[in-house]
Amino acid sequence: MISLSEETIELHKKHGGKLGVTAKVSLSNSHDLSLAYTPGVSAVSKAIAQDKSLARKLTINGHTVAIISDGSAVLGLGNIGPEAALPVMEGKALLIKEFAGLDAFPLVINTQKPEEIIQFVRQVAPSFSAVNLEDIGAPNCFLIEEALQDLGIPVFHDDQHGTAVAVTAALTNATKVIEKPYEQLRVGIVGAGAAGLAVSKMLLAADCKDEHCNIIKGLPHVADVIVFDSSGALYAGRDGMNVYKQAIAGISNHERRSGKPEEALKDFDVVIGLSGPGTITAEAIGVMADRPVVFAMANPDPEIMPDDALAAGAYVVATGRSDFPNQINNILAFPAVFKIAHEFGLKTITTEVKIALVRALASLLPNPTREEIVVSPFYPNLVETLVEKVGKELGLK
Amino acid sequence: MISLSEETIELHKKHGGKLGVTAKVSLSNSHDLSLAYTPGVSAVSKAIAQDKSLARKLTINGHTVAIISDGSAVLGLGNIGPEAALPVMEGKALLIKEFAGLDAFPLVINTQKPEEIIQFVRQVAPSFSAVNLEDIGAPNCFLIEEALQDLGIPVFHDDQHGTAVAVTAALTNATKVIEKPYEQLRVGIVGAGAAGLAVSKMLLAADCKDEHCNIIKGLPHVADVIVFDSSGALYAGRDGMNVYKQAIAGISNHERRSGKPEEALKDFDVVIGLSGPGTITAEAIGVMADRPVVFAMANPDPEIMPDDALAAGAYVVATGRSDFPNQINNILAFPAVFKIAHEFGLKTITTEVKIALVRALASLLPNPTREEIVVSPFYPNLVETLVEKVGKELGLK
Repeated sequence: MISLSEETIELHKKHGGKLGVTAKVSLSNSHDLSLAYTPGVSAVSKAIAQDKSLARKLTINGHTVAIISDGSAVLGLGNIGPEAALPVMEGKALLIKEFAGLDAFPLVINTQKPEEIIQFVRQVAPSFSAVNLEDIGAPNCFLIEEALQDLGIPVFHDDQHGTAVAVTAALTNATKVIEKPYEQLRVGIVGAGAAGLAVSKMLLAADCKDEHCNIIKGLPHVADVIVFDSSGALYAGRDGMNVYKQAIAGISNHERRSGKPEEALKDFDVVIGLSGPGTITAEAIGVMADRPVVFAMANPDPEIMPDDALAAGAYVVATGRSDFPNQINNILAFPAVFKIAHEFGLKTITTEVKIALVRALASLLPNPTREEIVVSPFYPNLVETLVEKVGKELGLK
Repeated sequence: MISLSEETIELHKKHGGKLGVTAKVSLSNSHDLSLAYTPGVSAVSKAIAQDKSLARKLTINGHTVAIISDGSAVLGLGNIGPEAALPVMEGKALLIKEFAGLDAFPLVINTQKPEEIIQFVRQVAPSFSAVNLEDIGAPNCFLIEEALQDLGIPVFHDDQHGTAVAVTAALTNATKVIEKPYEQLRVGIVGAGAAGLAVSKMLLAADCKDEHCNIIKGLPHVADVIVFDSSGALYAGRDGMNVYKQAIAGISNHERRSGKPEEALKDFDVVIGLSGPGTITAEAIGVMADRPVVFAMANPDPEIMPDDALAAGAYVVATGRSDFPNQINNILAFPAVFKIAHEFGLKTITTEVKIALVRALASLLPNPTREEIVVSPFYPNLVETLVEKVGKELGLK
């Protein structure tokens, strides 16, 4: 029997990847040519030269998402560089096309310097309606994304926010299963990279810039979060934290607990792994409160295998994998994010938009169970439904 | 009746431009998802991380041309910037797709600094199999293209070389009509921009780097060329020439003629306009040798209108326009250039390749006439035929 790896490589070889660029107009005679190219096309160029905003209606600039990666932090593979990251970025573009109906094109780039990546995105922006930053390592990803929020089109780092939206929606439903109020949850986050810090911010409804985080008033948030890096719990004043960890430490871990999850998670309700295999132990789950929730998100090898988590007392278990119940996948989030931005002409994806999407996504499953806390990416009309719900909640049109 | 401009704008509005990105694989269930994205895709990334050259077979990198422009010198419109240049670049991508069967994607960029454009192309290269530079003004275009020849994939500035190939092929056939040997022709080139200098180099079979041009031995070339800029004929030692003009002056205008075409073109056989309306006069044609050949290539308004050129004594007249006989269009060249590079794995497009393409293109019309010196872009199997002929001539496989 052929393995998944072999089948995947054969599929990619057959087509030379997964994407093609196709014509929307025909080119079968010289009249067609005069419309698509010279001399006709100069009328289109002239119109845009007079009013730049027309590019949105008359070119690909209105409906095309750039998927940009430096290949520095590819899911499960690490810093493998741009060429090797390309199949993942093609996949991302494909998903945006298939789930959100927007065009998307992958650009993998030959630099890992944040200031060069920022400059690159600014330079390439005129071809695109939005930018998805992908698989760029922390802390560069924070610096890059923040610097680009004034670009005039949405710049969204999916590893941070797509993950945060999907995880928070799943947790919203998990709290129904364990019958604890979301606002009273105490949550451990194992992993202080892009996803770990982003999930922490979303659970706390926090907006962060460089060294400072502010809790946004009026948005739902959990009672407390403790983030763990390889040196243990983050707390205000701890040594060895970059500015992004310092910012989170300033608004989390109210009791300033220290040490590993086995010590610091005593009586906590939830633990979310966004790290790597082995970083959530049965012992850590053992010290948690009743009916603990365990999300072990590392791909392909989770922080703890679901069976081991259940054996250790976990009540609801989720992973990033499709071969266990409760797959939490950012496919649930990012196509909708770009479609929402496109439909409502958003120039940035604010925390309010992300939290509205969390609510909308959670609401698709009115009666969650231990083995079903999120919908599948193949939920009928998933993206359209989310766009409508978010638009209604935020009063967008 | 609707005008061509209106029809063009409506067509662009209807589709939001002319291009889409499409999936080559299906995505209708979770097995599809596991092949196109996680977890399957990591096998493809791993394979490429171990052997970068596999990106060519397993990703879009093997068959996708980047169309890159800074919008600084858009055909007939000048420096209109990236957004307004995008419709032209989409058209270019479309033509590569339709005529050469390769994918192509337009990137219009927010900088006109040559060193930044060079850096941008180096950064974006891993997504692409070749780069078409487009509508970048002289002299920056020379600097940029030359600096990128070590990139490992072809970097081709179509405004220079596509035009040069098409014009030289047309001239090859025009010499049959006027019954003069190509090697004895004396040719005036009105316009010392990207196209003017590139046509001059091709007619002289010259390879130029910065300040120096060398005539390549064994390739056909005309007897002499005089290039004109707005100050008149270029000749060795003239004032007010950039290094690129100096380099051409060093190998052309053997008699060091000076002044305007009306003076300097006495007894010349051919005049080629790559400038703007009004720059070739009836008087200039009047001083030329018997049966003068006039190519007035400016678009949409040629250097002299065909009727006026004929009235002034021109024997063969060509333009860049589709509404007169003898349209010389670089569509005849660039799709074939990229297909040749793709089929034979070329890393650069050498002068030898371009001249082989000139010969192949000219040979498609065994019996040229005054009103037909080049084939149409809709010549059946144009690109395939050219690829085969060039491959055979150069012994490529």
